[in-house]
Amino acid sequence: MSSSDLENLIDLMARLPGLGPRSARRAVLHLIRKRGLLLTPLADSMARVAETARECLNCGNIGTSDICDICADETRATGEICVVEDVADLWAMERASVFKGRYHVLGGTLSALEGVGPEDLSIPRLVDRITTEGVTEVILALNATVDGQTTAHYIADQLEHQVKVSSLAQGVPVGGELDYLDEGTITAALKARKPV
Amino acid sequence: MSSSDLENLIDLMARLPGLGPRSARRAVLHLIRKRGLLLTPLADSMARVAETARECLNCGNIGTSDICDICADETRATGEICVVEDVADLWAMERASVFKGRYHVLGGTLSALEGVGPEDLSIPRLVDRITTEGVTEVILALNATVDGQTTAHYIADQLEHQVKVSSLAQGVPVGGELDYLDEGTITAALKARKPV
Repeated sequence: MSSSDLENLIDLMARLPGLGPRSARRAVLHLIRKRGLLLTPLADSMARVAETARECLNCGNIGTSDICDICADETRATGEICVVEDVADLWAMERASVFKGRYHVLGGTLSALEGVGPEDLSIPRLVDRITTEGVTEVILALNATVDGQTTAHYIADQLEHQVKVSSLAQGVPVGGELDYLDEGTITAALKARKPV
Repeated sequence: MSSSDLENLIDLMARLPGLGPRSARRAVLHLIRKRGLLLTPLADSMARVAETARECLNCGNIGTSDICDICADETRATGEICVVEDVADLWAMERASVFKGRYHVLGGTLSALEGVGPEDLSIPRLVDRITTEGVTEVILALNATVDGQTTAHYIADQLEHQVKVSSLAQGVPVGGELDYLDEGTITAALKARKPV
């Protein structure tokens, strides 16, 4: 078909989430057409990230130094720590730009089925941070799945009496239509109803 | 959010066809998790392709030398040239691995609306190749769109009396169900019916 360098690039691209063989071929043709504008900068950027990206030793966020931008920022030492499952969730919280404290990335959830115990997550480090950083509130922003909620309960138990623990409210999403919501969400929203 | 190297990589990835901001973020996190297996090889492969990829001076295919693998392969000098709109179509033909001749990539179709004339495509070079390569048959494998068919007619006119010109058959796709086919395809298939 094409020469081996090209086939190799297509194979690698096809291993990205969201791309298959067909879209990888389209992407590679697009890259070659935009060589100076896209392909070369992308190759450079990937090489740089491959070299510099690392996990923050404190919170588990991904950055380019041992301590990430958020942990290094003294204005974010508000005493609040938001616990998330993975870095994608941290980024989602940051996009809302409403939370001004620091994060703690667990790197997964407890799962009996997959044999993930507390020692596989960064829960011990979270417990350490409570005292060393003078934390006053831990906000659990875990996914509303069974594993996420199990993990939330476990962490809440661990931190009991040490610090205030809260979790994100459940209810109707902004812009959501009742007709399209599941019964669980409607039940949660009704139970947590507020005076207008 | 993340450090500027990461944001830059996400921005670049989001410019690939088939990826948006959300899937670019997912892809970048995946790349960082698979740094040795995927990110570094991908950066290297892109850099190599950015340096070596070029259009074949003869047919317009993309390869890593001035004359592509297919044009350089003497066993493919069968006297047949298959004319396609772009390199993706050439790759699609090669995947079927039924055509044993050479190709000619037009780089688009004639389009009055977008001001694409014969001189913007590689039609003059195609006419040259007929004599220099001793071509006996030109197979038009252009898309079954209005612009594709206009271009096919124009090329057929240009090559009249010089060489045999054919085009791909139209009909029911293999595995296709009549119920889901448009009227035009059924009409074409009926007109081109063959004795069993």
